[in-house]
Amino acid sequence: MNGAEALMRTLAEGGVEVVFTNPGTTELHLVGALDSVPQLRGVLALFEGVVTGAADGYARIAGKPAATLLHLGPGFAYGLTNLHNSRRANSPVLNIVGDHPTYHNAVDPPLASDIAALGGWLRGPVRRPESAAGAGTDAAATLASVMEPPGQVATVIMSADVSWSDGATAATPVDPPPAPAVPADVINQVAQIARGGDCALVIGGPALREAGLCAASRIAAATGLRVLQELYSNRVEHGAGLPSFPRLGFYPDQALEQLAGVRHVITAGTKAPVSFFAYSDKPSCLVPQDATTHVLADVGQDAVAALTRLADLVAPDTAAHVAEPRRPRLPTGPLTLHNWCDVVGALLPEAAIVVDESVSSGTALAAATAGAPRHDVLMQTGGAMGDGMPLAVGAAVAAPDRPVVALIADGCAMYTPTALWTQARERLNVTTVILDNRSYAILRQEWKYYSQRPGARDPDGNPQFDLGSPAIDFVRLAESFGVPATLARTAEELAEQFSHALAEPGPHLIQAMIPSAA
Amino acid sequence: MNGAEALMRTLAEGGVEVVFTNPGTTELHLVGALDSVPQLRGVLALFEGVVTGAADGYARIAGKPAATLLHLGPGFAYGLTNLHNSRRANSPVLNIVGDHPTYHNAVDPPLASDIAALGGWLRGPVRRPESAAGAGTDAAATLASVMEPPGQVATVIMSADVSWSDGATAATPVDPPPAPAVPADVINQVAQIARGGDCALVIGGPALREAGLCAASRIAAATGLRVLQELYSNRVEHGAGLPSFPRLGFYPDQALEQLAGVRHVITAGTKAPVSFFAYSDKPSCLVPQDATTHVLADVGQDAVAALTRLADLVAPDTAAHVAEPRRPRLPTGPLTLHNWCDVVGALLPEAAIVVDESVSSGTALAAATAGAPRHDVLMQTGGAMGDGMPLAVGAAVAAPDRPVVALIADGCAMYTPTALWTQARERLNVTTVILDNRSYAILRQEWKYYSQRPGARDPDGNPQFDLGSPAIDFVRLAESFGVPATLARTAEELAEQFSHALAEPGPHLIQAMIPSAA
Repeated sequence: MNGAEALMRTLAEGGVEVVFTNPGTTELHLVGALDSVPQLRGVLALFEGVVTGAADGYARIAGKPAATLLHLGPGFAYGLTNLHNSRRANSPVLNIVGDHPTYHNAVDPPLASDIAALGGWLRGPVRRPESAAGAGTDAAATLASVMEPPGQVATVIMSADVSWSDGATAATPVDPPPAPAVPADVINQVAQIARGGDCALVIGGPALREAGLCAASRIAAATGLRVLQELYSNRVEHGAGLPSFPRLGFYPDQALEQLAGVRHVITAGTKAPVSFFAYSDKPSCLVPQDATTHVLADVGQDAVAALTRLADLVAPDTAAHVAEPRRPRLPTGPLTLHNWCDVVGALLPEAAIVVDESVSSGTALAAATAGAPRHDVLMQTGGAMGDGMPLAVGAAVAAPDRPVVALIADGCAMYTPTALWTQARERLNVTTVILDNRSYAILRQEWKYYSQRPGARDPDGNPQFDLGSPAIDFVRLAESFGVPATLARTAEELAEQFSHALAEPGPHLIQAMIPSAA
Repeated sequence: MNGAEALMRTLAEGGVEVVFTNPGTTELHLVGALDSVPQLRGVLALFEGVVTGAADGYARIAGKPAATLLHLGPGFAYGLTNLHNSRRANSPVLNIVGDHPTYHNAVDPPLASDIAALGGWLRGPVRRPESAAGAGTDAAATLASVMEPPGQVATVIMSADVSWSDGATAATPVDPPPAPAVPADVINQVAQIARGGDCALVIGGPALREAGLCAASRIAAATGLRVLQELYSNRVEHGAGLPSFPRLGFYPDQALEQLAGVRHVITAGTKAPVSFFAYSDKPSCLVPQDATTHVLADVGQDAVAALTRLADLVAPDTAAHVAEPRRPRLPTGPLTLHNWCDVVGALLPEAAIVVDESVSSGTALAAATAGAPRHDVLMQTGGAMGDGMPLAVGAAVAAPDRPVVALIADGCAMYTPTALWTQARERLNVTTVILDNRSYAILRQEWKYYSQRPGARDPDGNPQFDLGSPAIDFVRLAESFGVPATLARTAEELAEQFSHALAEPGPHLIQAMIPSAA
């Protein structure tokens, strides 16, 4: 068995089922090994940002790691940005990066670079087996690393000679440790705080699924505290039959308003709120100055168990408040910032996975879908654009029987458009709606937050925010990658096209012309 | 003046004319400053890999730096891969990366990351002014860095508060030092070696332009040494009236054959040849074992002056052998690996810039264009795919009056397809020919170099090499970005479409169906 085979077999033995790939020559033995392990499915993408975003989406839905196969430092570099999102999502993603043999790097060939430095940028462990004999154990150790709560990105660098050399053996995977429990005295102290009033509870991470949401709702009902959801989450369960809470606002003023009057901020599964960007006249930390932060469960601790225990303490006889099944009426007329969300809310199918990279166009989405059939929402967690369409790829690979609805701002779609090709190739049930306002509308909004210099052009005149010259024809773009596509200018058109896309197997794209928020 | 304005004014004062951009909120003051300096032109791209590749192409043709404007670590990360190519090209590229204020990074907001680590991966200097007062001087120092011979990639990180704070002043740019001269005794020693016979001269970098080529030709004519051109070059002058030399082969056996029997390998402007990839049964260093390497001019030294002096020593009365004007006849019939190159050779216009990312489809290109009107050839220098279409953007911005012909393998086109949008937006005179063999043909070739395991699928069956499921419709893709496009299946169609594209202003794309080499 060569090193490449030992690695692939170890991953398969550890439960990995999918490897998202964009290989090159240094990965050819890994390609051969992938092909030889029947438990592993290789899913090719044309660009590494799609590979890594897909692995993230897969991990969020499957609840277990996907692997990526990337071509030396330059291939890894193309994939880093969506791995940054994965890191912020605490997604278990295992990167396999091929490299030259060490003796070959010594002559500094064109593709040589410091791959470990890139892995280090992701703050996860990086391993490089020194011989084929170490490939299996390093694979097993890396797999254990990615699954350590709360989940992380880790990398194994496979020198080509390690991949091609014989004498390797597959290693037995190590079970990851469970998420550490929150000590009882911490929960008891927080219970006292919660009972005392003037509290907000900010929940995130795994607490945004049914058990955590219900516990938070019970606590709120019994104590009167307000519950807020972190701004960007890796996976939120949402819809009829579930409690639903407001998300923290994007702008500092919004979050400060949401927390106004609070004396205690309790966190579970997420950090205390901070501003997404810095503004010269706004604080970075959004906990009110006279309020105290209490960590019920840190990121990586078992937040769901802690919330459930807290609910049992302060709300033993209180039920959660859950959303009734209730859909918006199908709207009519030209598309607006609000009515496109109503179309989605009215027609969202059962058990959908919604990928939300709608940026400034999606502010009305959560309300419009609150009573729709229960669904999961995946968001861009690290603020790096271009995650949505790849996340949809990975989610659809992880859950082939669930419809995936990807709501993508036009600007975001331009970082990873070839995700559509992989959707067509793998016949994934993804319905992409491009929210096309022909601008970087979020930047035009942000521009207003700064006091600009005299003489500076207003945002509508600044070419750096304009995506309309030329206008992008997303219908043709999708068709070029084998994805059927249509254009919607009215709510009726969007409704009809959305229904059709969901009814037909395989990927579809709808270019929805939405006026800009800014 | 705020820090952003001081930076932009310093760059303009230092001769920078173009900033390729994909900004975000942390760059808004830089966007405002860019807009306020009339000497600077902002060129927007939809993806950072296009931004950085365009800056590289601009630098190679303009012979002076372009700047990039990138959005924190994640935006920089998307741009890293083509900066790796820039690093290997020794292109002067100056990255401006926005960041949060240091106090804001301290709360670890979603977009925070170690930007300096990414800059370090490129092995160029990274500066971060600590206050607005330092923005101008750090900009000037970084500009000097990128122009240090042989040229490099350098980065200035602009914290948002440095950008928005007042109290800054523009700094006076520092002139870069000239390339160090090669000492006379080194040239004299090499002259003795060259006169002794059994020599090869490997030239690269700036030696691949007229003066260096002519000197090398004179040396060859007088001494009988064989001249070889480095495999991948940042810019080669080629065509009628110029000497032309074989390129080192991609595969070790090819290069070893080219150097067979040689006792002395002289290098000028490039390193001694090494294998692009490692193979278990081939050497990494391609200088024959019984040959000695002599460095006439190291990378960064004045190779052209050294070659010229060497020619004056060993070939005082010898003229260079230059190619006669001679074009291939226009071929007919279905496109082949050879005849598409003849179409280009037959029709290449005067003063063209050829971007060659043709990979396995382009082996016949150099011969077919050797007698065409003099042109520059830009190649992918770092082995990272996706450089070609962005290089074409930058070259066309640098030389608006020259036709740019981009020859792009289908796989390569899928990393940075939105380069076409910037070509349309800026009405650039770029004719892109996609060499569409519907596969990663280079990987199918490489596969044959490895002894694969029993039971492994042959390359034609391995889905990891297949780009034909679904087939990519490059015509629609180009049209989606506002670039007129056509499909060519025969040499006649390619010739007609190529002529038409060159005759009409603005960008065009031709999808040329080429059989695979593998």
